[in-house]
Amino acid sequence: MALENPFYSPEVQGPYDLHSLGRFELEEGGAIPDLQLAVATYGTLNDAKDNAILVPTWFSGTHQTWELTYIGPGRALDPEKYFIVVVNQIGNGCSTSPHNTDGEIAMSAFPHVRIGDDVRAQEQLLREVFGIERLALVVGGSMGAQQTWEWAVRFPDKVLRAAPIAGTAQNTPHDFLFTQTLMDAITSDPGWNGGSYSSPADVADGLRRHADIWAVMGLSTEFWRTEFWRNVELPDVTWDTFVEFRDRFLRPTFAAMDPNALLSMAWKWQRGDVARNTGGDLAAALGRITAKTFVMPIDEDMFFPVRDCRREQELTPGSELRVLPSIAGHFGLFGFEETYLTQLDDNLRELLEIEV
Amino acid sequence: MALENPFYSPEVQGPYDLHSLGRFELEEGGAIPDLQLAVATYGTLNDAKDNAILVPTWFSGTHQTWELTYIGPGRALDPEKYFIVVVNQIGNGCSTSPHNTDGEIAMSAFPHVRIGDDVRAQEQLLREVFGIERLALVVGGSMGAQQTWEWAVRFPDKVLRAAPIAGTAQNTPHDFLFTQTLMDAITSDPGWNGGSYSSPADVADGLRRHADIWAVMGLSTEFWRTEFWRNVELPDVTWDTFVEFRDRFLRPTFAAMDPNALLSMAWKWQRGDVARNTGGDLAAALGRITAKTFVMPIDEDMFFPVRDCRREQELTPGSELRVLPSIAGHFGLFGFEETYLTQLDDNLRELLEIEV
Repeated sequence: MALENPFYSPEVQGPYDLHSLGRFELEEGGAIPDLQLAVATYGTLNDAKDNAILVPTWFSGTHQTWELTYIGPGRALDPEKYFIVVVNQIGNGCSTSPHNTDGEIAMSAFPHVRIGDDVRAQEQLLREVFGIERLALVVGGSMGAQQTWEWAVRFPDKVLRAAPIAGTAQNTPHDFLFTQTLMDAITSDPGWNGGSYSSPADVADGLRRHADIWAVMGLSTEFWRTEFWRNVELPDVTWDTFVEFRDRFLRPTFAAMDPNALLSMAWKWQRGDVARNTGGDLAAALGRITAKTFVMPIDEDMFFPVRDCRREQELTPGSELRVLPSIAGHFGLFGFEETYLTQLDDNLRELLEIEV
Repeated sequence: MALENPFYSPEVQGPYDLHSLGRFELEEGGAIPDLQLAVATYGTLNDAKDNAILVPTWFSGTHQTWELTYIGPGRALDPEKYFIVVVNQIGNGCSTSPHNTDGEIAMSAFPHVRIGDDVRAQEQLLREVFGIERLALVVGGSMGAQQTWEWAVRFPDKVLRAAPIAGTAQNTPHDFLFTQTLMDAITSDPGWNGGSYSSPADVADGLRRHADIWAVMGLSTEFWRTEFWRNVELPDVTWDTFVEFRDRFLRPTFAAMDPNALLSMAWKWQRGDVARNTGGDLAAALGRITAKTFVMPIDEDMFFPVRDCRREQELTPGSELRVLPSIAGHFGLFGFEETYLTQLDDNLRELLEIEV
């Protein structure tokens, strides 16, 4: 039975539409009887249908951060020039997810979803709903980068340009183990109850521990040392110490989320791997890419380090490495710094101007 | 009431002596009624009593790793030349600890112990039991480095040379948060029961989660990427995948340990800070040091990064930065690599040959 969670409502996340894809078969087996993708669009699709940009979302994220932080007139992702489609990933709480679906796949019965499922669903959505056959750009951060890579490998003819930010094409062992600690923080809470809780509040302790691990891995040692958190602002809440920043910023960020949604995404994150398209051969998979690709790791990222991203970039024909600076590490994705946003925008503008 | 734990016995850890210091007042308030330090010595104290080397231990460690990995004829820590005293830190399971003491401070009633307490206790031990007034060298890794720094600041006249490896003089906010996740992994286990368990096995789940966080932060992304674990060997157990290495090496490493001992050490680790000696002024504290000091961070360390150690080294008069290479990150301390051990020994030999 569906669980009410206002956090995922349009009132909190900003407007989005639900598009039904009907029954959707999953790579890992099983199916979602009626897959609903939560989609937010910005700008207008032109008659040639060649100004579409796709943005898949990251772990725990929705379209909202993209709307508030990355998209806007004068920005690289300019809705006055482009038709920008942000698709919430399956299981993220807005699209079909454990808590918002009824019947055979509700809650703990939600099936395993893979990055490839998201990408296939997005391709179907763009084609069937919008008539889009080619994308001017696919851009995403973290798990959004995983989906961006998967797009470029799986549908090379459809992706003209790709910009994976702070994420890899093939998930690393270290990332797998890190993600597992996030999952175990939640599932170790007796209130999680094998996935059958009556409210995220039942899993408050687990969500808190999950947030606390993000404090260690999501930011950077320099973020904490320099007290960069003094520059971070939220309405109606302040912090005077680093522990208060963890308690008042990071913990509330995750407290409202659905535990099973986080677990569904985490399982998917652990297994992102474009080499599934080529019998395990990563070089062959990346060699398929024809998109002009800017690979953009964040310099202080603790778990998608630059060197891991560089290794994949070097296997990608015609690609370029564009390292983004952020003292916030992986959470630099939230755009705390003008320098980060400016460099990102500059890179995306340059990429979009390249004729392909 | 004391809990039997064979893991901390001389049969498992190698021989050590217990030296009683009697009643020991603690910086944080309270006292240990009869503080017993577990001490292992190697070599012979010369008549001048000027060939003594002190080694304080790290989090979860005992004298054993030092005996097996760092000390031996022909090594820098050569028992044929030096009198090497390895003192197990208070709360480590061998010295007085929550599980091995009776009465008012047993188990959950164990008082908070600080790095400064360990250093004062070690100073008393060396003076009263061995008649040692000056140390040719203090060397330790991680929390052993915290104690090494504290020694050099608190007793500058007694420390001729200092070699803090992979640890800081002032714990960082990031380290504090990281250590907290280790602690929460244990205390979130219902079997921990507020510290009143009847066996570490009651806390098996918590100890497992604690080990799994170490897998992410104790090693390095390159350790996991390159499958360096294929080079690690233990008797009677093998692993073919990175998950098996976590399950069969890292988890058993911590499973036998006492949860309250780990928590006591972790609390201490979080608060290591030589600036407590100088009213919070780190530069003033490090400025007191007269020991010839080689600061030796490990290049791949995820939580005592080189830059944090360099910052402290630059505040330490006459010190040198000697970065040690280890793909194993912080756990490079276990000496998996000959290159690491050779560079460490070379540095220590050079340091010991400097006239001071």
